[in-house]
Amino acid sequence: MTDAPDLDALQAAVCPLPTAAEGERVSLAHGAGLGASARLFEELVLPALGNPALEARHDGAVLPLPAGAGRIAFTTDTFVVSPLEFPGGDIGVLAVHGTLNDLAMCGARPLALSCGLVLEEGLPLERLRGLVGSMGRAARAAGVPIVTGDTKVVEHGKGDGAFVNTAGFGLVPEGRDLRPARVRGGDVVLVSGPIGQHGAAVLSVREGIELESEIQSDTAALPELVETLLTVAPGTTCLRDPTRGGLGASLCEVASAASLEVELFEQEVPVDAQVRAVCELLGLDPLFLACEGRLVAFVPPSEADAALAALRTDPLGAGAARVGRVCDGPGRVVVETRIGGRRLLPLPAGDPLPRIC
Amino acid sequence: MTDAPDLDALQAAVCPLPTAAEGERVSLAHGAGLGASARLFEELVLPALGNPALEARHDGAVLPLPAGAGRIAFTTDTFVVSPLEFPGGDIGVLAVHGTLNDLAMCGARPLALSCGLVLEEGLPLERLRGLVGSMGRAARAAGVPIVTGDTKVVEHGKGDGAFVNTAGFGLVPEGRDLRPARVRGGDVVLVSGPIGQHGAAVLSVREGIELESEIQSDTAALPELVETLLTVAPGTTCLRDPTRGGLGASLCEVASAASLEVELFEQEVPVDAQVRAVCELLGLDPLFLACEGRLVAFVPPSEADAALAALRTDPLGAGAARVGRVCDGPGRVVVETRIGGRRLLPLPAGDPLPRIC
Repeated sequence: MTDAPDLDALQAAVCPLPTAAEGERVSLAHGAGLGASARLFEELVLPALGNPALEARHDGAVLPLPAGAGRIAFTTDTFVVSPLEFPGGDIGVLAVHGTLNDLAMCGARPLALSCGLVLEEGLPLERLRGLVGSMGRAARAAGVPIVTGDTKVVEHGKGDGAFVNTAGFGLVPEGRDLRPARVRGGDVVLVSGPIGQHGAAVLSVREGIELESEIQSDTAALPELVETLLTVAPGTTCLRDPTRGGLGASLCEVASAASLEVELFEQEVPVDAQVRAVCELLGLDPLFLACEGRLVAFVPPSEADAALAALRTDPLGAGAARVGRVCDGPGRVVVETRIGGRRLLPLPAGDPLPRIC
Repeated sequence: MTDAPDLDALQAAVCPLPTAAEGERVSLAHGAGLGASARLFEELVLPALGNPALEARHDGAVLPLPAGAGRIAFTTDTFVVSPLEFPGGDIGVLAVHGTLNDLAMCGARPLALSCGLVLEEGLPLERLRGLVGSMGRAARAAGVPIVTGDTKVVEHGKGDGAFVNTAGFGLVPEGRDLRPARVRGGDVVLVSGPIGQHGAAVLSVREGIELESEIQSDTAALPELVETLLTVAPGTTCLRDPTRGGLGASLCEVASAASLEVELFEQEVPVDAQVRAVCELLGLDPLFLACEGRLVAFVPPSEADAALAALRTDPLGAGAARVGRVCDGPGRVVVETRIGGRRLLPLPAGDPLPRIC
């Protein structure tokens, strides 16, 4: 079962990446953050825009400032979540947290955010006031101002309420270098808490699923948790926030970019019972459900215990767990299942449930 | 005719700003970059997000880096132009130039751009390839890489082909401080070339207007022209690129923010004959048509001749002209008409022709 060529053949069979053939059109799968998105990026975006920063395939770019003035991290994300409001948050808070977290995953201390709105004609101003208010509160709570912005309006039927882009930048303290290429065999894989809550919260409200208690999105700003972690585990090699595509996609991306095998211990992955229930009802794998307030850390084994303990001191990391390890091997994720077997974790081509963030 | 209270009363009558009353909804006017946009920003966005950088009401934010490492300019813009391709450019090139130019208007030397795409399901991949290719070429031509990005896809009928957000940052060289509040009475107002070509190009293709020769968008990257200008006119107090809302809106915004009167000499404003023809056909004022490769400069009188000569040495500034001056007076724009009269230039509440950029 662990023979490499067999698993590779299996992966090719399970994940037939769409080709950009003549006449092909953009599909929802291209936006799911999984196989089709990756293909679009590699085949269409990279050849057109290619440069070393983009080729790092990280959550943001890290660039040296001229004249040795340090390194800046820079990132952007557009949010098209539907509905605009969901248990535990709305598109505004998500947009602020998402970009703060991408900066934090680069090891940066965020300094400022931008906000680009595309509004659909007819959106009640009160809903706009609500989402902009959420952005302001989330930004103030994180101590990072939204310093510049832009608002466009499109005709009714040419948008969907509101789309929110945030970009942001921050400074990366000297000595920090977090990226997939730094991951090493032996690194321990930690997650900071139960996975999939954001995806399950949006899906359960969208699909009208009645639960004993409502699932709340885990949306949260992670820069402080990252500082807590890096203080005790300065050797951390890579951080990811498992948003679109969830923990599964994050691990597949890092494994592929690092050309190393990630072993995932299925029974160690924290999943709340309510989230598991939604997944069973909808036939979904929680490994591919979006989180918006969790991080995955690749930590050298010597620092793993301290890192886990430090994460658990913070309410945002109270449910942290050791979920895997990195091994020499081809760039892929292998799941050690509950019953002791091993299976390849293929990156699905597309997401059956779009617009989760 | 030149009595201030009368003109103010006239402005209030001509420009009834919409109120954000209960039950009000987002309208296309809120995205036109004119009166309704300003109201939305002042009444809804600023109270929610307010901070000193946003309150400067400039094309971008200028922020000090920690530890005296200089000042950074940061800006964002979303592009929703319809159609995606137009004579002289497409949404991709526009998105790159737009953000480069906003940085240049802050006096910054651009360092990097981001790209956030919202694609509508069904967009042919070839059109996507075209627009991303345009972005890459425009970015390379300007020597500024697109270092980070994000792609989202929405269902058919929930978007309109493609919306493109770009954000960007750059460093502001020491000693530069360009913003509306620095404008002084006596400053000379220069424009770098004929106005309204971008707006007229998009409108003529959208409205199917047949012209002797096609109007080309003036879309262009202005950072080099700004360096040329500032070398000979370091006392320049403010720069603007008159995009949405055109020269008229840019002057109204600066006059209002600086609390000074801008006199505009109508007969000195360069407008190409073809653009004038489109305006007459559609009942539009070229003063409010968007440019995407022009700048407005507020220059001290002692540097005005040198500034104008320097602009004209660059092909992008070959049609530069002196079009106005700043006087003490209330924050408004007064037009000296061709026949020697004076009229107030009111900021229209909304644009009858949306989605020009």
